[in-house]
Amino acid sequence: MDAILFVFASGRTVLVPWDANLANEMSAVDEVVPYTNFKRSFREAVTTVLKEAGATAGSRPKIEFLGHTTYLRHRELMGDLPDAETLIRSEGCDAHLGSLRAVKDEEEMAALEKAAGITDQLCGAVTKLITDAPAGSLTENEMALFLQREAVARGAEGMGFETLAAGPGRSWGIHPFPASTSGAFGGKGLSILDFGVKVEGYTSDVTVTVARGKLTDEQERMIGLVERAYEAALQAARPGASPRDPAAKADEIFGSAGWRMPHALGHGIGLDAHERPLLHIQGSGSDSSLAHGMVFTIEPGLYHPQHGGVRWENDVLMTDKGPKVLTNAKIIRLP
Amino acid sequence: MDAILFVFASGRTVLVPWDANLANEMSAVDEVVPYTNFKRSFREAVTTVLKEAGATAGSRPKIEFLGHTTYLRHRELMGDLPDAETLIRSEGCDAHLGSLRAVKDEEEMAALEKAAGITDQLCGAVTKLITDAPAGSLTENEMALFLQREAVARGAEGMGFETLAAGPGRSWGIHPFPASTSGAFGGKGLSILDFGVKVEGYTSDVTVTVARGKLTDEQERMIGLVERAYEAALQAARPGASPRDPAAKADEIFGSAGWRMPHALGHGIGLDAHERPLLHIQGSGSDSSLAHGMVFTIEPGLYHPQHGGVRWENDVLMTDKGPKVLTNAKIIRLP
Repeated sequence: MDAILFVFASGRTVLVPWDANLANEMSAVDEVVPYTNFKRSFREAVTTVLKEAGATAGSRPKIEFLGHTTYLRHRELMGDLPDAETLIRSEGCDAHLGSLRAVKDEEEMAALEKAAGITDQLCGAVTKLITDAPAGSLTENEMALFLQREAVARGAEGMGFETLAAGPGRSWGIHPFPASTSGAFGGKGLSILDFGVKVEGYTSDVTVTVARGKLTDEQERMIGLVERAYEAALQAARPGASPRDPAAKADEIFGSAGWRMPHALGHGIGLDAHERPLLHIQGSGSDSSLAHGMVFTIEPGLYHPQHGGVRWENDVLMTDKGPKVLTNAKIIRLP
Repeated sequence: MDAILFVFASGRTVLVPWDANLANEMSAVDEVVPYTNFKRSFREAVTTVLKEAGATAGSRPKIEFLGHTTYLRHRELMGDLPDAETLIRSEGCDAHLGSLRAVKDEEEMAALEKAAGITDQLCGAVTKLITDAPAGSLTENEMALFLQREAVARGAEGMGFETLAAGPGRSWGIHPFPASTSGAFGGKGLSILDFGVKVEGYTSDVTVTVARGKLTDEQERMIGLVERAYEAALQAARPGASPRDPAAKADEIFGSAGWRMPHALGHGIGLDAHERPLLHIQGSGSDSSLAHGMVFTIEPGLYHPQHGGVRWENDVLMTDKGPKVLTNAKIIRLP
């Protein structure tokens, strides 16, 4: 609800922003009408703009709403626009936009490659920090702060999302809650660090697992499986393949060893940390194939309430010749 | 989509989480069924759990979905549950929950008061940092990092939301994009710093405006209006008053001076940075009155594309005897 964007069949665009100054400064539309003009009422904004565009009583405008429009809002709007013909499609205008966004152009790829470069530097810095520190002396909060400070120092705009730092005591969570604590990070066992840096609004997304000391047999098995799944998924990520194919490979490897991965194999990255394509065996049909210019994560992971978690995540650019791994996050083993 | 929660009329609860380890560790429900049991399919999870609860062909279960259920998901579920009677209400189960959450209990108030205390310490530290630094030598990124480091050092879990730091060059935005940059903060003119700290999951939310050097007449007028609006709104925030009343006071003061505030006057805070009540002249009718135990922001602001922005935001606890201002953020004036 930062803004309402109207796109007319003629190509004309009208933006009704909450922040008119920001819209005037940064948007590229035909007309900006501040939300305050409509007393900040969504209903009034939509009905007024549509009426001004010719949706008078008796006419029958055809209006497509975004796929995530709620049932209640749709019903409310229909009450205000009884003559309109409305459309909400699961593969409609926003899905189309999502598919366009999934394929990055040269400028977007350059931003993501720069973000990936900084991310790799941070992985190196993190490895050094943990290796040099006495085991268990670092906290999750310190890891998160360290990354943020170093990211900005190396030219990133900041983090792409809240850094997830989970020490051996709670790496069993996919996304730990809270994201980081004053608990120990990087001590004996398995720790997970999931982060990304933002360059020109585009975010990277990697996960480093730190395995310290002698591991349990179960932990070794988990690492081995995640590594196998990662390699197999990367092999299966070919131009023209379905985004489900690499996900199926990983699930197959885990499944045949009696494990289940509780999340998708990966997702597109870009202006949002989660974009299309979705690499998931239950993925939607619209991203029918991995194409040149798509940038996505591959991040197999396994989690055990006693033994902790392992996730290995890197960012991959699909090209006509095959996948190019942009980042070099590793499972770090320390004595 | 972190989890699906089923609440049956009997009081029985079933949680279908994405992260089963986290759910087993932290949830308080009768049953946890991992999402992977349903191949991570929302549709399959819902239909299976409902069927196991007795929603067989021929029976006619009555199901209420959350108010933000999308039009498409509702249609999809109805296809799977043709015999169910469904309900989606704008003032339904989630609105009821929101109203319950709006009134804090003793434990919640204690967390928010602790967060407020740390927030006040940070306001002091920020004032000192800016006062001591040569004008314009600090960057927005440095401010954001400083707050995060100091918040954790003083016992907060971290920031409650991404810190917004806008120097004089871009304080015209309500929520600057990006949230902070390498641009100067706190130099001549108006800078805005909007932040909150998290304690036991509960977040504070304040905004400090830094006014440095000799201001333009317009900037002085804006500050004067925001201060008047703040005081008037606080006066109007009485137990039993409508959340619209303080908002109307602020809008009236701005309106009669030819200005418009582009956002609501305030909002509840708690586990989320934005909760009920909403202090807005167009607010929904469900938060019919400000009641003992509600904690909300009062944050009048004005924004001008040339002169920049002013916002003054503090957190207020409503009590039977009147509002208690929990935080002491100020408009800081520096020579």
